[in-house]
Amino acid sequence: MTSSASTPALIALDWGTTSLRAYLLGADGLALDTRASSAGIMKLPTGGFDQAFEETCGAWLDVHAQLPVIAAGMVGSAQGWIEAPYVETPAGAEALVAGIVNVKTARGVTVHVVPGVLERGALPNVMRGEETQIFGALASDASLQGQGGALIGLPGTHAKWAFVSDARIERFYTFMTGEAFGALRDHTILGRTMHPSATHDEAAFQRGVDTARDAGHPGVLATIFSTRTLGLTGQLSAEQQADYLSGLLIGHELRGLNEVLARQQSSLTGRTLRLIGNDALCDRYRAALARFGCHDAATVAHATERGLYRIAAQAGLVPQPHAPVRAA
Amino acid sequence: MTSSASTPALIALDWGTTSLRAYLLGADGLALDTRASSAGIMKLPTGGFDQAFEETCGAWLDVHAQLPVIAAGMVGSAQGWIEAPYVETPAGAEALVAGIVNVKTARGVTVHVVPGVLERGALPNVMRGEETQIFGALASDASLQGQGGALIGLPGTHAKWAFVSDARIERFYTFMTGEAFGALRDHTILGRTMHPSATHDEAAFQRGVDTARDAGHPGVLATIFSTRTLGLTGQLSAEQQADYLSGLLIGHELRGLNEVLARQQSSLTGRTLRLIGNDALCDRYRAALARFGCHDAATVAHATERGLYRIAAQAGLVPQPHAPVRAA
Repeated sequence: MTSSASTPALIALDWGTTSLRAYLLGADGLALDTRASSAGIMKLPTGGFDQAFEETCGAWLDVHAQLPVIAAGMVGSAQGWIEAPYVETPAGAEALVAGIVNVKTARGVTVHVVPGVLERGALPNVMRGEETQIFGALASDASLQGQGGALIGLPGTHAKWAFVSDARIERFYTFMTGEAFGALRDHTILGRTMHPSATHDEAAFQRGVDTARDAGHPGVLATIFSTRTLGLTGQLSAEQQADYLSGLLIGHELRGLNEVLARQQSSLTGRTLRLIGNDALCDRYRAALARFGCHDAATVAHATERGLYRIAAQAGLVPQPHAPVRAA
Repeated sequence: MTSSASTPALIALDWGTTSLRAYLLGADGLALDTRASSAGIMKLPTGGFDQAFEETCGAWLDVHAQLPVIAAGMVGSAQGWIEAPYVETPAGAEALVAGIVNVKTARGVTVHVVPGVLERGALPNVMRGEETQIFGALASDASLQGQGGALIGLPGTHAKWAFVSDARIERFYTFMTGEAFGALRDHTILGRTMHPSATHDEAAFQRGVDTARDAGHPGVLATIFSTRTLGLTGQLSAEQQADYLSGLLIGHELRGLNEVLARQQSSLTGRTLRLIGNDALCDRYRAALARFGCHDAATVAHATERGLYRIAAQAGLVPQPHAPVRAA
């Protein structure tokens, strides 16, 4: 195999609950081609994992039959293609590599499945897929590997906040912010007075963030009711209520994170951190973080494919990247 | 009209969103007969409010055509039979009486609709129906009218906690605990690993309460995820998860209430308060309150009908009760 960046070196899969993203990666860890499918592990076609894999990656393998294949995400869960048991914190890339479990496809190709990470304790936490993105962020941003450790946020259905030091995931938290927002909007009285809006209302969003941030309320179970009562009293239009509720929930998440930081004599104020996720959602979090005094929270691009490449390289499936990869 | 307790004196309606409860009350404010209907204001029969009223109270009025009729709850909202605009805090019974709005039924009977209460502010609060129950509790329990004010909790879909002093509702909070529980259980990943259980698991419930109560976590958006991860790690069975989540949410509500009390140099610990609501739910709250050091939280019986009678008496629709009414 050559190591030219334009020659395919790896097929990398980000295989979650509701979607499958496939990357054909060159030896620099960047994508030469990509495929997206709705065949998440809970939405598989009739032929199951094998059929979803063939539909997404078959054409690549027809041309490049010897390419190694790596996968991360819920595909390695107990409900996945094969279970790759969790690796426990503190977890570095070498521990993830040691935890890789292989499954052979109908075509005879070996898929290397990366395990998730488990943090034990009174409130256990688990991740599957985010660990790979975190190592992708570390690979692309040398500033995250300095002293004192890094804080990386992964907004989403189940938002994660991970503390990383010495290239290991030391501990992390899960906030069900995205899923709670959907459940409250679609399945409680709060949704009844909301009208959809084509545009994002930044003022309503920031009002929600500020309300959650400031002391003087008895917690999120109480503040969310103000989505309705500010409407009843003419202070929030029907079109503003969804953005206000979104700001409230993200604000409560950041307030909780700030309380964790306070126990380490730290704070979001003035802090440097990194975000991984879709651009629109990361923009919301960046705006919310600014309300907490954090103004250095760039989104890391290509974290998923870079993380998959890095773990594959550490596992000896592909050459090490030519040079330290920089954020795009 | 005689004032014998066994002679009907008042038809009193507790008319909410999803149900209608009707009481035929004697001059002591106690029920001689009751009717329950599912004809809440969002679930009316074809003939609307008039038909629901006739089906529930028509037989009583056929016999006692001159009985006054009073109603409280969502029947007085903008979506109700007639809107009785909110009275603002601090609100006493005389303010509620002044805010009564009348509607005439097809039969020609006047229904006196009690207004709800609004607390203005950055986080406005509203109640409709609970204000009447609170005045019922005050009427039945002289100990609530002493110095220093009373704290009354009304668990439910939207739990209320009201501070009452000098026979006025001074301020109150709304926690969407019940509705959030339903939305999380039925419409998020948390429900997927729950199995229904025929029996209440008190240990799992108290574990949830204690987890919410104790510091060291970043808030309810994070702790709820432990319902799933304690299951994944074999520490919580599928049958225990719903009671654990219920305990978590009620625990977060009480923790928030405690933070409000702390700003008044007070606490739930050692405090006397009263609960109004269905017996099973009040039992849960009483168990949770005990975990916060509050061991005097009796449920007030018959608060709804006593409150409706008391407001009707203050409005001159019925005689004052013969004697101070005691809790049953």
